[in-house]
Amino acid sequence: MELKTIAFDVMGSDNGLIPAVDAAIKLLSERKDLKIIFVGDEEQLKAKLATKKYDKNRVEVINTTQVIEMTDGIMDIRRKKDSSMVKALELVRDGQADAITTGGATAPFIAGCQFILKPLDGISKTAFMPVIPTINANRQTMLLDVGANIEIKGEDLEKYAIMASAYAKAVLGVDRPEVALLNIGEEKSKGLDFHREAYQLMANNKNLSFVGNIESRYITNGLVDIIISDGYGGNLALKSFEGMGKNLLSEIKAALTKNIWRKIAALSLRKAFKEVANKFDYKNYAGAILLGVSKIAFKSHGSSDTQSFFATLRMTYEAITNDVITKMKSAIGD
Amino acid sequence: MELKTIAFDVMGSDNGLIPAVDAAIKLLSERKDLKIIFVGDEEQLKAKLATKKYDKNRVEVINTTQVIEMTDGIMDIRRKKDSSMVKALELVRDGQADAITTGGATAPFIAGCQFILKPLDGISKTAFMPVIPTINANRQTMLLDVGANIEIKGEDLEKYAIMASAYAKAVLGVDRPEVALLNIGEEKSKGLDFHREAYQLMANNKNLSFVGNIESRYITNGLVDIIISDGYGGNLALKSFEGMGKNLLSEIKAALTKNIWRKIAALSLRKAFKEVANKFDYKNYAGAILLGVSKIAFKSHGSSDTQSFFATLRMTYEAITNDVITKMKSAIGD
Repeated sequence: MELKTIAFDVMGSDNGLIPAVDAAIKLLSERKDLKIIFVGDEEQLKAKLATKKYDKNRVEVINTTQVIEMTDGIMDIRRKKDSSMVKALELVRDGQADAITTGGATAPFIAGCQFILKPLDGISKTAFMPVIPTINANRQTMLLDVGANIEIKGEDLEKYAIMASAYAKAVLGVDRPEVALLNIGEEKSKGLDFHREAYQLMANNKNLSFVGNIESRYITNGLVDIIISDGYGGNLALKSFEGMGKNLLSEIKAALTKNIWRKIAALSLRKAFKEVANKFDYKNYAGAILLGVSKIAFKSHGSSDTQSFFATLRMTYEAITNDVITKMKSAIGD
Repeated sequence: MELKTIAFDVMGSDNGLIPAVDAAIKLLSERKDLKIIFVGDEEQLKAKLATKKYDKNRVEVINTTQVIEMTDGIMDIRRKKDSSMVKALELVRDGQADAITTGGATAPFIAGCQFILKPLDGISKTAFMPVIPTINANRQTMLLDVGANIEIKGEDLEKYAIMASAYAKAVLGVDRPEVALLNIGEEKSKGLDFHREAYQLMANNKNLSFVGNIESRYITNGLVDIIISDGYGGNLALKSFEGMGKNLLSEIKAALTKNIWRKIAALSLRKAFKEVANKFDYKNYAGAILLGVSKIAFKSHGSSDTQSFFATLRMTYEAITNDVITKMKSAIGD
């Protein structure tokens, strides 16, 4: 059995390497063809791993002495040659790993993917693509870009749509993924110049199932498989509904625990709330692939906990299993 | 007692004039110094008014024969001279009314405000500014622009901040309103060129309490009084959290009515849910002033019902009462 190997940069996220290791060990126990190369401070890693049970044939530790910090810029990728992020990227570049997962700083990660892993042929802009929870039980929606590039052209958005469609076919198993363009209104004349350019290009591209513009109001409705946006708009829209979800759930919790009678009544509904809260818990969709890179590269929230890292590692594993890079290459070449 | 007069364009919204009239009659009964001039189809208006009790000295009906439809463009403002929207704008221009409220089409309304009411001196871009519900019981937040202008410069955003600050002082009674800039990150270098320009201008403006960038995640947290944005970003952010709020509440409702036991338990918590749902119900903040116009001009959602129109009319009334135009003029002149 050929192992799927993830180079896991465990340094540089807000919560240290403990949740990262916990998540990885959990996924290793569930996926028997998964191998994890932990990249980071060997001493800390070994101390943590010593407390765990796992298949030693599928775990490796590579020591690094530097860390890309959250405050570091893109040039630190060139400066910190012995950082865990750079080392993990190099393992992927050199074919020792199939993919990288990191919870580290965003801008250096994007730069590192460009410099070390290189973009796919024909792609000039990369895009972060998380999978969004929706109220449609039969459909998840992928939203991109949510912040990798904030200055783009219409043709970049078309490329996003092509890559995301190939990804949705490969990973979500959707035959003809429906694509919409995030915009401030449904009419095709709406938005900025790049919206109108992208609209035209996508509408004319016979390999895409483009259904038109979509307002941000419907992102979580599960009306389409893929929503395309510039990184500025996508970032604002994503964080906006995430914030509302979190705030609304906390307001409901406060209202239900306001007095003892409510607390008692609410007890029997705990399961019902958990169902909804879990569905919209952004910890379960904390990961995003950086699309447009020639290798599989996943970023988890900087504040990831075990649950978040687990979700991101699982997405990384599924991207490897479904050979998404080959499929995207072929789609771009069409 | 001097009457505050609203010219109310009751045609052109999705639900016809019945909810509009219901809302106006309700507010007339609560505010004894309010006068409403209903502008629209006289026959329909009189038929509806005949079913109502109200102070006839504070109600007027002006007949118009045309309607600005939702599908109309900005040029229809010039073409449809006997439309209810144009007539209502002219009543304000000519001093027969202190303000206009409409649920009609957005683009023609913005154009009509520019052509007929004129912008404030020194203002080149107008901005829609709704008041946003927040989880902070002591603070409402005003978000602007949410879609009047999608191509702006840094200096336009500074003007938005100046006008919104004057408005917050006058209407919300906030002494030194705190202003933040909506952006994809907190660092001052983040975003597009206009963000960095606006950041600099607002930071250097001693009449503003500028606190820096804010991510869309925190819009509903009530951290500041005013959030400034370009109309593209503001529109995406606003509709994104509105959509999530609606979807999350409907998911919770579905989870709580999934079986008979849950239904019974949920019954006793109805009041708790109502509290939260009401707070975040966008019907209660369906109205937005168009800032930058030389008269008070309010737009309510095209799909406004009685509750929405009532909220928007009440905001219009409060803007008149607090003489916001004079105060904004003086703030711009500083």
